[in-house]
Amino acid sequence: MTTYKMILSYDGSRYSGWQRQGNTNNTIQEKLEKVLEGILGVQIEAAASGRTDEGVHALGQVVSFRTEKEENCEELLQACNRYLPQDIRVLSLEYAYPRFHARLNAVGKWYDYRIDHGKIARVFERKYVTRVEEPLDLNAMKEAAAFLLGEHDYASFCDNHGKKKSTVRRVDVIDMTDRDGILTISFHGDGFLYHMVRIMTGTLLEVGQGKRSAYGMIRVLEAKDRKKAGFLAPAQGLFLREVEY
Amino acid sequence: MTTYKMILSYDGSRYSGWQRQGNTNNTIQEKLEKVLEGILGVQIEAAASGRTDEGVHALGQVVSFRTEKEENCEELLQACNRYLPQDIRVLSLEYAYPRFHARLNAVGKWYDYRIDHGKIARVFERKYVTRVEEPLDLNAMKEAAAFLLGEHDYASFCDNHGKKKSTVRRVDVIDMTDRDGILTISFHGDGFLYHMVRIMTGTLLEVGQGKRSAYGMIRVLEAKDRKKAGFLAPAQGLFLREVEY
Repeated sequence: MTTYKMILSYDGSRYSGWQRQGNTNNTIQEKLEKVLEGILGVQIEAAASGRTDEGVHALGQVVSFRTEKEENCEELLQACNRYLPQDIRVLSLEYAYPRFHARLNAVGKWYDYRIDHGKIARVFERKYVTRVEEPLDLNAMKEAAAFLLGEHDYASFCDNHGKKKSTVRRVDVIDMTDRDGILTISFHGDGFLYHMVRIMTGTLLEVGQGKRSAYGMIRVLEAKDRKKAGFLAPAQGLFLREVEY
Repeated sequence: MTTYKMILSYDGSRYSGWQRQGNTNNTIQEKLEKVLEGILGVQIEAAASGRTDEGVHALGQVVSFRTEKEENCEELLQACNRYLPQDIRVLSLEYAYPRFHARLNAVGKWYDYRIDHGKIARVFERKYVTRVEEPLDLNAMKEAAAFLLGEHDYASFCDNHGKKKSTVRRVDVIDMTDRDGILTISFHGDGFLYHMVRIMTGTLLEVGQGKRSAYGMIRVLEAKDRKKAGFLAPAQGLFLREVEY
């Protein structure tokens, strides 16, 4: 058996997320597995570092899979890109150690959330940002973000979590870069709960719009109650940028 | 009468270009005029600096129009952006001198043509570039571009030109910037003939792919024959960036 590490970029706009769902044929996983199976002639099980939700994009999703015989990585990469739709591209493909698994071995992730808050909405980025018309108080947002850093129980920032699983995570970076009216919030942590980045972003946006205080983040964390956090920011502004191993 | 100068940005992907065409309702001009008429309650004739073709984009198209009474520019800009589709945005609106006309008074234009020639095609830029799979010899392209500068009869670089009109133009900049696999060719001149930027780009691409020599540009110019120049590069890589007055 040979194990591979693949880095994928995709525009999530027209997909129902990464993960295969029953009989649909509209997930990244199905598109990729079908192309790999067409090329290799055998069934392939592709594991991603995590499921991205419907509409979420990836700049560097990591996927692992195995084949019986050792394939040429460069040829396989080129064949994948020939048959995949143009909104999914394989950026790199290499051999991994035998037991490598994209989800189980991930130790850190970077997500970017992009917000267009300029005076005039951007034309060419419009599908890859969330548009906010109101002015944002970026200093208040930075102050609020600082309260969210560290190792915490992020239950307030998670949708539909199973009661038994831990909702404790470590988030060590929430950075904001504002350029030409596009605010990018970059998150780094050891892992993120379901909807966590989008709920954090929604909550930070409410701080930026003066609807809640930066200091209020402490109580939101303590409450461990989804209802205390802000709205779920739309999928189209979210990018999985990098996965660390 | 009040005269206005408007700067527009649009994604040309789903439009049949700027200029109104009989009974279609699929041009930028019609979309803009209809919105202006809805807001102002009178018929408006909008003149652009030039017609952009089907599928061509604009970062800074300039449009002039007149109204009987003086409208508030900021309010009118905001109303336009409220009613225009998201792929057309008014970037600025100001009063112009009474006889200002966006086409007749233009003295210079900047166009950018974007080519994705990286090893892996870019996902998020895919609709706003032309993809070239073969490696490009950028030095040969720069050498070829230098032969195209100056004041020349560009008849070879023009489709369907009326025999009577002059095909002499001055092109003083053809710059190439290559970043992350995206080559941007920037053109500046006093005016451009029908399809001129796209035919120049197609011809430069053929030089970059080794299909013709840089020095051969001299004979292409001298021939004054469209058949001697290269292919028409696709519309989706072309952006009207700026119009000068």
